[in-house]
Amino acid sequence: MIDTGNRKIGFLGPTGTWAEEALIAATGVSADETQPIPSVYDVIAAVAAGDISQGIVPMENAIEGSVSATLDVLAFEVENVKIVREVVHPIRHRLIAGTRLPLEQIEKLISHPQAHAQCRRFIREKLPQAEIVAANSTAEAVRIVSLGNEKWAAIGSSLAAKSYDCKIIEDDIEDYSGNQTRFVLLSTEPASQDEDSHYKTSIVCTIAHDQPGSLLQILQEFAHRYVNLTKIESRPSKKGLGDYVFFIDVEGKKDDEQVAAAIKCLECKLARVKLLGSYPVG
Amino acid sequence: MIDTGNRKIGFLGPTGTWAEEALIAATGVSADETQPIPSVYDVIAAVAAGDISQGIVPMENAIEGSVSATLDVLAFEVENVKIVREVVHPIRHRLIAGTRLPLEQIEKLISHPQAHAQCRRFIREKLPQAEIVAANSTAEAVRIVSLGNEKWAAIGSSLAAKSYDCKIIEDDIEDYSGNQTRFVLLSTEPASQDEDSHYKTSIVCTIAHDQPGSLLQILQEFAHRYVNLTKIESRPSKKGLGDYVFFIDVEGKKDDEQVAAAIKCLECKLARVKLLGSYPVG
Repeated sequence: MIDTGNRKIGFLGPTGTWAEEALIAATGVSADETQPIPSVYDVIAAVAAGDISQGIVPMENAIEGSVSATLDVLAFEVENVKIVREVVHPIRHRLIAGTRLPLEQIEKLISHPQAHAQCRRFIREKLPQAEIVAANSTAEAVRIVSLGNEKWAAIGSSLAAKSYDCKIIEDDIEDYSGNQTRFVLLSTEPASQDEDSHYKTSIVCTIAHDQPGSLLQILQEFAHRYVNLTKIESRPSKKGLGDYVFFIDVEGKKDDEQVAAAIKCLECKLARVKLLGSYPVG
Repeated sequence: MIDTGNRKIGFLGPTGTWAEEALIAATGVSADETQPIPSVYDVIAAVAAGDISQGIVPMENAIEGSVSATLDVLAFEVENVKIVREVVHPIRHRLIAGTRLPLEQIEKLISHPQAHAQCRRFIREKLPQAEIVAANSTAEAVRIVSLGNEKWAAIGSSLAAKSYDCKIIEDDIEDYSGNQTRFVLLSTEPASQDEDSHYKTSIVCTIAHDQPGSLLQILQEFAHRYVNLTKIESRPSKKGLGDYVFFIDVEGKKDDEQVAAAIKCLECKLARVKLLGSYPVG
């Protein structure tokens, strides 16, 4: 489905991350067409530089919220990268170890802090004795556990357990069922706008300092044109506490009459409006 | 200034965190009046249970945005804990090691992922060879570095360098100057409302599912009463992607006529309005 040319599709690595699992589930690409890249920044920079045809990174988790690295790099650090597709993937955390050890024998529990946070209740109730150790990703945690000490366990994906030849001790240990992550596929070529499916358009609005009431104005531009917002989120502008940019997702294509009119009006009123992409809904 | 009874004031630990530094800077308490507590959840739970008189946790960083653990525990997990004061503290990251080693000899750079994120550019330019290793806190990272390997460095606070008897190799390595974190002091006793200073009131609004346009209504309740919002932020309701609660800070005391009227109207319209506190501005 994806024309990769001779270049690969990058994913937030290492091998066994949720990003790789989501990419495979959504596109069916094989391992020799993909490439792990160590950080969100590096994935997006590789797309911008043309080193990879497309890249997939996490954008938002249903429990923990937005992935700030992704939002910030897209908003502030690149100009030529667009969201071309979203992929919503279920996140079912597994407790993983090198051998099938009983829960009460686990001495260290390694994972990314977001995974620890998503399994807080399970850890409190079932692993009160375990020391919490941070890793750069859930896949990295499983890789560490696979290297040796048999009293260590990790929180990660089925794919990671398989990739590093480990055992799944418990399934679905997350606190809230229905946990999902929304990934975005990025490219320097915008998504075509002619497909007959539901679209979403993502923008970032920068408000001039000391423009109180701007958020209300933004919402009104969409509301009085009957354009539905599916998400609104503030992020620091990085200019100081209390100074924000707003990430907004609306239903529809960027060229739909009402969406285009609202964006045009916002461009007149605000310091900056940046289009992050207009793409089929996941 | 703070009446602690016989109980201590808890801070997000271990010794040497930004939370401890902010607490000391703001209140002048001495080490024997305070107590490190390992996680945001545990600090807030200890306040709720009355085990400590007050607790301090980070709420929002000027670069990385809100601390989701704090927002979520305050919104969803405790009923009797209120914000009684905010403390805005400058965050100036130091590169710290056991000895004064040259940058190009650093093999591992240990810190909390948020600190790595706040120093992304410095790491890219000055420490391209260093392996990035995650720790549960910046203080924990400095503690690990103090234990031994002389090719390791950490990102952390001056207080951490001092607490663990390490050397500061570089000052102010953060990407954006003016980096600050807003901490909140929590108690089961609400802040008194009679002081003659600027106040802020924090609420969380839960919107019934399928109530589009609710955010616009919320903003209008405050706007037409000339109550200024200083912050608005969406967080997942944890019921599924696309379902949010809104954290809102407004200028004024909760009993100010216009603030009280707006909150009362919101209580009629929304599924839930929870008061997080009404407290002097930091």
